[in-house]
Amino acid sequence: MTSIDLNADLGESFGSWTFGDDAAVLASISSANVACGFHAGDPPGIRETCRAAARLGVAVGAHPGYRDLAGFGRRFIAYDPEVLAAEIVAQIGAVQALARSAGTSVRYVKPHGALYTRIAHDPVQARAVVAALRDVDPGLPLVVLPGSAIERLAREAGLRVVPEAFADRAYRADGSLVPRGEPGAVLAPEAAVAQAVRLVAEGCATTVDGGEIELTPETICLHGDAPSAVQLAREIRAALEDAGVAIRSFVAA
Amino acid sequence: MTSIDLNADLGESFGSWTFGDDAAVLASISSANVACGFHAGDPPGIRETCRAAARLGVAVGAHPGYRDLAGFGRRFIAYDPEVLAAEIVAQIGAVQALARSAGTSVRYVKPHGALYTRIAHDPVQARAVVAALRDVDPGLPLVVLPGSAIERLAREAGLRVVPEAFADRAYRADGSLVPRGEPGAVLAPEAAVAQAVRLVAEGCATTVDGGEIELTPETICLHGDAPSAVQLAREIRAALEDAGVAIRSFVAA
Amino acid sequence: MTSIDLNADLGESFGSWTFGDDAAVLASISSANVACGFHAGDPPGIRETCRAAARLGVAVGAHPGYRDLAGFGRRFIAYDPEVLAAEIVAQIGAVQALARSAGTSVRYVKPHGALYTRIAHDPVQARAVVAALRDVDPGLPLVVLPGSAIERLAREAGLRVVPEAFADRAYRADGSLVPRGEPGAVLAPEAAVAQAVRLVAEGCATTVDGGEIELTPETICLHGDAPSAVQLAREIRAALEDAGVAIRSFVAA
Amino acid sequence: MTSIDLNADLGESFGSWTFGDDAAVLASISSANVACGFHAGDPPGIRETCRAAARLGVAVGAHPGYRDLAGFGRRFIAYDPEVLAAEIVAQIGAVQALARSAGTSVRYVKPHGALYTRIAHDPVQARAVVAALRDVDPGLPLVVLPGSAIERLAREAGLRVVPEAFADRAYRADGSLVPRGEPGAVLAPEAAVAQAVRLVAEGCATTVDGGEIELTPETICLHGDAPSAVQLAREIRAALEDAGVAIRSFVAA
Repeated sequence: MTSIDLNADLGESFGSWTFGDDAAVLASISSANVACGFHAGDPPGIRETCRAAARLGVAVGAHPGYRDLAGFGRRFIAYDPEVLAAEIVAQIGAVQALARSAGTSVRYVKPHGALYTRIAHDPVQARAVVAALRDVDPGLPLVVLPGSAIERLAREAGLRVVPEAFADRAYRADGSLVPRGEPGAVLAPEAAVAQAVRLVAEGCATTVDGGEIELTPETICLHGDAPSAVQLAREIRAALEDAGVAIRSFVAA
Repeated sequence: MTSIDLNADLGESFGSWTFGDDAAVLASISSANVACGFHAGDPPGIRETCRAAARLGVAVGAHPGYRDLAGFGRRFIAYDPEVLAAEIVAQIGAVQALARSAGTSVRYVKPHGALYTRIAHDPVQARAVVAALRDVDPGLPLVVLPGSAIERLAREAGLRVVPEAFADRAYRADGSLVPRGEPGAVLAPEAAVAQAVRLVAEGCATTVDGGEIELTPETICLHGDAPSAVQLAREIRAALEDAGVAIRSFVAA
Repeated sequence: MTSIDLNADLGESFGSWTFGDDAAVLASISSANVACGFHAGDPPGIRETCRAAARLGVAVGAHPGYRDLAGFGRRFIAYDPEVLAAEIVAQIGAVQALARSAGTSVRYVKPHGALYTRIAHDPVQARAVVAALRDVDPGLPLVVLPGSAIERLAREAGLRVVPEAFADRAYRADGSLVPRGEPGAVLAPEAAVAQAVRLVAEGCATTVDGGEIELTPETICLHGDAPSAVQLAREIRAALEDAGVAIRSFVAA
Repeated sequence: MTSIDLNADLGESFGSWTFGDDAAVLASISSANVACGFHAGDPPGIRETCRAAARLGVAVGAHPGYRDLAGFGRRFIAYDPEVLAAEIVAQIGAVQALARSAGTSVRYVKPHGALYTRIAHDPVQARAVVAALRDVDPGLPLVVLPGSAIERLAREAGLRVVPEAFADRAYRADGSLVPRGEPGAVLAPEAAVAQAVRLVAEGCATTVDGGEIELTPETICLHGDAPSAVQLAREIRAALEDAGVAIRSFVAA
């Protein structure tokens, strides 16, 4: 039976501020990218998210980001790579301890926001991410954009990379995402559902210019920060299951 | 041969701000209480401190504190105990990962500043610290003030407690410290050296009211945040060694 | 015609995190307590709140709190009073500049959360608040709990104090609020509406032990951080207007 | 009599962390760029710096930077310009209130660190700075790098710009600074003293490639974050006074 992993960002509340609907999203995914406290997330909330994931058999991943609560890790920061690497080690370590205390453990790493975007093409910050993973645990899989600088550098370093695709984002012919803000960047719900199924069933997607691109993701990214996103996540999961695809973490249980 | 551990707070720089003279203090101590990023310390600095400790054979301890950079963890915060416990788990986890990446590991925990002071008498915050240690690793020793609430609660929970004494602080008859700000709270350098030697050699100290108090510390706290403190640390170590006392961590090598 | 001011906390979103429904609450109040960035609020959000208040003729007040984003200013911090005073000056100054750039100005000050609660009985922190107001502008009115330490100290210092009452909180015989968490602390919606009208029309309220207490508030505090709170605010305003009470800021237009 | 302004960054301590030797630097300068709390500086320290400046007749300027304590405002952040503008308004407002409470006032604005560097060539962030100044007080002079984007945009907006030169930095033929890290970027002390005197006396400097560049600064930037920098500041001031140049703020007393 074919299977695919579905991942989403969770644990991004902070203090009295709530973000997204973790409980609802958890029901649709097999991997939870848990914020690590630098761009979002606080220790009690991170732990509660880990507990909920553990209860549902959802794999916990560390989701490190830039140290930027005010920007939610969504804006580029020109980091010294040594500082970035150490911050990623600290973030993963914090979530490892919280996850263990919640009866589960960190099974993979997926960088967040502007860091994710940056390491797709910046070898300096990408190397910092690779160095951090090697320091923490070289066996931890790293979720990456296929064809990116980080994918190549992580492979060269002997890390397991997990290629990721996006259900609701349009692709360009070179495999990069159409940047948010450009026309057609975000797919309508039905198109997103169709793209998710096609990615798994056929290993390809239609590009923004009407061509075809081969993509063989091991995980598909969903969103959960708006009620419509939660609904879309549900529909994508249902459509995949209807197509005979099992939703399963890319790490062994 | 008699031995004693000497501990001091390290890794408390932050970004462009330097705090204390870690390199100088490391030469005098056997245990480094390393800041965890919430009251002080940033990941690259914490890692560098761990590396330096590892090079010198100094044991690394996690030194968690309140989330209060502006107050340096030195002022009481009325925490929800669930939040406090989770924050301590996260802090220890962050330093565990950084320490491992520096070739060493976290060997013990010593709470910082206002948290240390509070858990000496507040069972609610003390229980949060105990819960955090049990969650992270029940085998981690906890440095405590003898006779305190945290000592009792940690023992009851089956944790290993490491009683601590202060070379340069005056004691009251009940074993508590004369609060800073009160007359006689801080001993002059020669008195501090003498108190350190007497604590180890005789297991007692003279109290502020002229009496005697029995104290059998496994570790003595030194300071390193001022040039005079670094000098005093050196003198205390030298005086102990002259008295035939080995300076050795309370954890097996 | 009798009139009363209705105030609520606004501008408490931060970065990507939303808090409360400012637009809905603004329609019910005459005074907006605008967060100043230390416990909540960021500059673009504070400015946007000031703009919305200006459009609706709602008076803007500065709502300074403890420096504690993670605790939302709701937990006590044992501040040095000099530090607290300077932080309050800075917070008011920041909102003054943002309010001016939004076409309005800061017309009063109301302390937030644990600071508000603390200065009701702690003369040290209360004096810090008084000192801050005198430094910034001794003409700025200060919203206070009647019978509190801050009311007395602010009056003695020649500040204008604005006594505040709570529609949905139960009072004790001494005029203090029944602490949240105790039985009967928070009134049911109909009781809150009735208490608001009675406070304005009769200048009194029923205490938790069934007695009567005289209260002549110049402003009544509403809440807006939950959909039910927004609905209650609407109902209180409507009931007051039905009773012939005008909703009007306590500062001259 | 010829005169020149000498400026330096001050008030950059934070909590228990000290930065630079404000007292020593104040004796050499006529304008103090005071940190505003986002990249460095806390309210009590900012106020103390303002008091010290007021005592010595040194003009206080607001020195806003990116919201980045861990990076000290020295690394680029890809800000939304609306957010940046609002943050600068808030920073200036905070220091205005603290300065007034210290018996002085904010007389000018000089952006800090990576923000200063960025607005030399990025019109988007430069326009955000211009918008902030117009919102706060269009009469506040803005210290700028001559020939920069910010200089042009600020002039076009009708702001008073104050061209700045650097005593200890090498210039390229186009008037830009040789970036730190490149060979020859920072002048040796004697060369810095000579460049300061020549800038004022002759209105020119030797470029890194041996040419000449015309520069007519109204202020010269000194540093104070290292003992050697404080010493250099003293020597530059002494050499200028020996050359018959008065050290005087660019704002009227």
